[in-house]
Amino acid sequence: MMTNNLKEGERLDDLQIKGYELIQNPKYFCFGMDAVLLSHYVKAPGDKKILDLGSGNGIIPVMLAALTKSTFIRGLEIQSHNIDMAERSIEHNGLLGRVSVVQGDIKDASKIFGASSFDIVVTNPPYMRGESGIKNDLDERTIARHEVLCSLEDIIRESSKMLNAGGRFYMVHRPLRLVDIFSLMREYKIEPKGMRLVYPYVHKEPNMVLIEGIKDGRPELRVDKPLIIYEPNGEYTKQLLEIYRSGE
Amino acid sequence: MMTNNLKEGERLDDLQIKGYELIQNPKYFCFGMDAVLLSHYVKAPGDKKILDLGSGNGIIPVMLAALTKSTFIRGLEIQSHNIDMAERSIEHNGLLGRVSVVQGDIKDASKIFGASSFDIVVTNPPYMRGESGIKNDLDERTIARHEVLCSLEDIIRESSKMLNAGGRFYMVHRPLRLVDIFSLMREYKIEPKGMRLVYPYVHKEPNMVLIEGIKDGRPELRVDKPLIIYEPNGEYTKQLLEIYRSGE
Repeated sequence: MMTNNLKEGERLDDLQIKGYELIQNPKYFCFGMDAVLLSHYVKAPGDKKILDLGSGNGIIPVMLAALTKSTFIRGLEIQSHNIDMAERSIEHNGLLGRVSVVQGDIKDASKIFGASSFDIVVTNPPYMRGESGIKNDLDERTIARHEVLCSLEDIIRESSKMLNAGGRFYMVHRPLRLVDIFSLMREYKIEPKGMRLVYPYVHKEPNMVLIEGIKDGRPELRVDKPLIIYEPNGEYTKQLLEIYRSGE
Repeated sequence: MMTNNLKEGERLDDLQIKGYELIQNPKYFCFGMDAVLLSHYVKAPGDKKILDLGSGNGIIPVMLAALTKSTFIRGLEIQSHNIDMAERSIEHNGLLGRVSVVQGDIKDASKIFGASSFDIVVTNPPYMRGESGIKNDLDERTIARHEVLCSLEDIIRESSKMLNAGGRFYMVHRPLRLVDIFSLMREYKIEPKGMRLVYPYVHKEPNMVLIEGIKDGRPELRVDKPLIIYEPNGEYTKQLLEIYRSGE
């Protein structure tokens, strides 16, 4: 693949799916396993309209282009250096038109795209609560990791506005926020319908949770089988490798 | 041990802890692994005042007498055949005075015991939603399994009333009710602080969830390592056996 659209300090990472590659800069926030597992957790059969809130360097829109048949995948991202990388990754993978990432604030999502305009909203939001002390040092990684520019409530409220009735919401987050997540989802009419805990090892506490919600859905939560990342010997588990290979 | 206090159809089951035994009648609802796992999940160091809401045949009060140093363990149970068995089991195990089970409706708990009178409330409630159709056939098992005499909301509201500030709430339930559970707990000021999912096999969906809450606690959920019951060959896992043996 061509590499002539890389800027200084950037690298091109193989996404190991459909030959897609992503431009990343180690100076900024690089994607982790959470974004990949979330993309695989999304159910989007047919040609669904998909929105990713807080797209960073575009990992989730590009992964969903590989994993779904959707012809309309949009991302919203506030930081211009991310938009710049995402736009070049989209072009690099031949996804222009099908995928695009718009610069803007999550709190303005419905002004930008129009309310009730998506079948699916996906988000890998900042995990840490905003602390007033942090705001004095607002670098790019802080914005990606802490709720300084938008809170969990902002994200869930805006996701609800953007979804059609019956539309699906997908999020990855830390398990310690589960009660906040469920309470806010119910408050904003996205009923939590599925949850999968991700355990690094079978005898360890989970460090991620994958959530599925349905706009105006009826109460009843499906809790999925556990997802365990590593064997005791440190190798990836068969179930993790199956997820990674399922998009091939 | 003496068996002369058994009535027709009853049996004496070894609880495999401190030599305790429980009178059960297979005609009625017999305790399951959920009650045992819940009892082991309770943290009650020192001499805590403990209340069990919906005690059935008394399994949880008797288990907690074996597992804790509490000198004040009370149970509340509505069905008189259960009270009759529980009272004889308490006497049989030499627990008179320390443990007692009172007949009454969970909705009247604070009238019976007085509000804010316990450090710990434990409950293994009916799992199934009350359906109007069921009420025509109100047998003992239906009452134990379905929310016909009290709802999940009744139980959480009354648990909150009975707890001191900082007191702990423990419940076992089905994972599919997690969103209802968390929402109601937060509504009634019992913050969910701990959760452990119980998976029958490592690659299966969980079928039980153990919950810990703190009255007036601050938000942040600890999600514990998974509890897996069976090895792939159908034998109990080491971690299950360790729990069962931990009370010895």
